[in-house]
Amino acid sequence: MTADLEWIETLAKKVSLTHAKKAQARQDGLTKPLGSLGELETVAIRLAAMQYTEKPTTNPTHICIFAGDHGVAEMGVSAYPQSVTGQMIKNFADGGAAINVIAKQLEATLEVISLGVVNDISGSDEIERIPHLTATENIAVKPAMTLPHLIHAINAGYNSIERACNAGVRLFIGGEMGIGNTTAASAMACAHLGVTPGHMAGPGTGLDALGVQKKGQVVELAIKQYEESKLNDGPLEILRCLGGFDIAGLVGSYIRSSQRGIPVLIDGFISSVAALTACRINPSILKWFFFGHQSAEPGHQYILDDLNVKPMLRLEMRLGEGSGAAIAALLLRTACDLHNSMATFESAGISGNTNGS
Amino acid sequence: MTADLEWIETLAKKVSLTHAKKAQARQDGLTKPLGSLGELETVAIRLAAMQYTEKPTTNPTHICIFAGDHGVAEMGVSAYPQSVTGQMIKNFADGGAAINVIAKQLEATLEVISLGVVNDISGSDEIERIPHLTATENIAVKPAMTLPHLIHAINAGYNSIERACNAGVRLFIGGEMGIGNTTAASAMACAHLGVTPGHMAGPGTGLDALGVQKKGQVVELAIKQYEESKLNDGPLEILRCLGGFDIAGLVGSYIRSSQRGIPVLIDGFISSVAALTACRINPSILKWFFFGHQSAEPGHQYILDDLNVKPMLRLEMRLGEGSGAAIAALLLRTACDLHNSMATFESAGISGNTNGS
Repeated sequence: MTADLEWIETLAKKVSLTHAKKAQARQDGLTKPLGSLGELETVAIRLAAMQYTEKPTTNPTHICIFAGDHGVAEMGVSAYPQSVTGQMIKNFADGGAAINVIAKQLEATLEVISLGVVNDISGSDEIERIPHLTATENIAVKPAMTLPHLIHAINAGYNSIERACNAGVRLFIGGEMGIGNTTAASAMACAHLGVTPGHMAGPGTGLDALGVQKKGQVVELAIKQYEESKLNDGPLEILRCLGGFDIAGLVGSYIRSSQRGIPVLIDGFISSVAALTACRINPSILKWFFFGHQSAEPGHQYILDDLNVKPMLRLEMRLGEGSGAAIAALLLRTACDLHNSMATFESAGISGNTNGS
Repeated sequence: MTADLEWIETLAKKVSLTHAKKAQARQDGLTKPLGSLGELETVAIRLAAMQYTEKPTTNPTHICIFAGDHGVAEMGVSAYPQSVTGQMIKNFADGGAAINVIAKQLEATLEVISLGVVNDISGSDEIERIPHLTATENIAVKPAMTLPHLIHAINAGYNSIERACNAGVRLFIGGEMGIGNTTAASAMACAHLGVTPGHMAGPGTGLDALGVQKKGQVVELAIKQYEESKLNDGPLEILRCLGGFDIAGLVGSYIRSSQRGIPVLIDGFISSVAALTACRINPSILKWFFFGHQSAEPGHQYILDDLNVKPMLRLEMRLGEGSGAAIAALLLRTACDLHNSMATFESAGISGNTNGS
């Protein structure tokens, strides 16, 4: 581990079993059949344990989108041209994207961190930008980035969480924007899990069957490049050789969020590959994750199976930019409201469960 | 058909194919990969078609809970005593139930119609109450209700929709409250679908294995009673012999809502049995239904399969009172916001899909 990433293996904050027990007892006393709110009970109890409180909350929620362009886009692996990455950053700034609409409903703060983008026309804050770079290398040919650039991108994730912590954030959602990033994520997933590229590559933003086939071949080239380039077998090396600035930013933010004790709500395919990578680097963090939705991208299932997790929603979404997680955050917010605001059997004078009594 | 239910077979309002097409075109122009909002696109387009508008909305949403006690509760088929029905009506009035919390988030209006309840202690409006009745008959022994009482309960549903229409409601959610009503709904589902009681009966509010077995036996007795009592094989006769005031109210409201052109969001097991019954009475209405969530009650799957529908959420909820549908309404609201508020590729100056071009 290089000196600049010393923090990355620090264990995640412990969750409070005491508060989990208290939250379970509260749920059991609310005016509803025992357990009848299903997963909404589970998430409220988990949030209470993470937040060391009897009254869990998702307010304020912070959404951070990491943006980066991918050299592999030159292989024609996306249904959209590379210029869309920068155009979408401007759309985020102008409030016109899906994530803007959902963030507004959540009353969430939304930050976009542009790490290296070909035509960043947004005039956005350059605070975390990687100097002189506008995209990763084409992973079909050579490693996506150097070690110093990898560290820069991961630390951009770290920094975003430090700022969020200082602002008192109670729930974190990471998002990504980068044309070509399902190709990078697919290659990373293949390297992590040993799945063949033909099984992992999917339509992404909307490739047709021929496009998916071609993408599978590009992922094959990327895996070959990784096998030849890698300096070791670790997850950071998979990220350096096959990932992207956006995915590296997510990895840094997920790990730091878990260390600082901010619950993390994971989005779809690309975010889950980042989550898998983060867990391979630091296995202590998985318990801080909620998985928001199952993506329509077929490769997502491999990641979910490996992490042994089940997302809250299955709405056939495949948009990225944190949108599926943000939809799930609506449910987390309601779960907290139910937990905190419902009457108890005792307070309402209602007869309890007579089962087995 | 008796004269008092003349309205019940009137065809549902037509939906607007013109507006569906316009809504589809708008979705395709929004700044996201084509189709990437998955089911959120589908529901926005369906709502646009139902509401004859380019800007669909769920605001205002109206929730109506039909409450009624079930004579079959005396067979010990619930984990809770019969007194809970009345106590929960008071809890609704006091704002302490799950549905109150979710209704507040939705800014929805909430109405509770008490049709016949043993200890109605809420002091609630008696406008629709069935005179002199505090519960149905025990369906294990005799038909749940007389034909005039059935008509009264169905028309309570009709009336609630007429009031909602006058108030300008744009989305309707029906809920139910009645200890013992999963037993009645299970018996109705068996009569409709020919499934054996042992397969249909589930834990309801939380029976243990022995309780479920006993409930299956009670449903068997109810089916036998129905076979002996029925005057014909129609869905109204299943409702009269095996249903409840709460379920009959739902049936009336679902049919009338579809006739008046108010989209209906269906809750879980009991509501779906009411929806199935309503569709058997008047098949034209199914296209007005959204199915909110899949209940943890195992029998729900039979109903969904028969109607060939897939609910939006699977959260292992089994609470009733419209709660699962109300959670799904949060997603419908967001779907409308996304449809109405996102930027288009054209307005944002973003490059479009190059797939196949």
